[in-house]
Amino acid sequence: MLGRVNHIAIAVPDLTAAAAAYRDRLGATVSQPQALPEHGVTVVFVELPNTKVELLQPLGENSPIAAFLDKNPSGGMHHICYEVDDILFARDRLVETGARVLGDGQPKTGAHGKPVLFLHPKDFFGTLIELEQA
Amino acid sequence: MLGRVNHIAIAVPDLTAAAAAYRDRLGATVSQPQALPEHGVTVVFVELPNTKVELLQPLGENSPIAAFLDKNPSGGMHHICYEVDDILFARDRLVETGARVLGDGQPKTGAHGKPVLFLHPKDFFGTLIELEQA
Repeated sequence: MLGRVNHIAIAVPDLTAAAAAYRDRLGATVSQPQALPEHGVTVVFVELPNTKVELLQPLGENSPIAAFLDKNPSGGMHHICYEVDDILFARDRLVETGARVLGDGQPKTGAHGKPVLFLHPKDFFGTLIELEQA
Repeated sequence: MLGRVNHIAIAVPDLTAAAAAYRDRLGATVSQPQALPEHGVTVVFVELPNTKVELLQPLGENSPIAAFLDKNPSGGMHHICYEVDDILFARDRLVETGARVLGDGQPKTGAHGKPVLFLHPKDFFGTLIELEQA
């Protein structure tokens, strides 16, 4: 069921400084910042040969990463996004095994324009998992 | 400089339960547990098409993940390991830009038998980064 790691999301308080650290210190290829107001974040993509890291900074009120940064003001790893072929099949299997899907259980359109769901971190040992239909 | 994501490491308090969650809830391929006493962890590999997740449980006294689990008793994302071609070149560039390498700055032999270094999370917005010479 679980496919590729689509991305690893890292919440940061200062996107410009974080992008510079990945570019200048680590020699990575980083994108220009992209504002995604409907998702409450501005994102920089760190392109790697086999996956990508997404550096996220809150944008606007009610950003979904604001509470995380309140708790972790320096930033930190926020979630891992895995690809699945069929998100409804994946959801039903997860619910059958007792795992909790966040929100109303219906896939939303994620930051890449594809259906996504988030799983409760308490069911996965403190890791927030996003599933994206590939 | 930054190559593939070699693995994402997740510290967990109960490796058997975590491996079962990834296998039974998420349908992932998980390895048998491997004890690595010289690294102070027992590890289960979650094999994904493009990278792997390593579920880590403390083993023995002075486990390097014991303090993390004291702070995050349910578990959580512990570090990201990136591959580099030349770890000494990478280290020197990092130090030149003011980034801090943990320990004495000399690569150690990591859990995969290859030279590794860890970078100070404060220099990377709360993310502990491992570099492994591929």
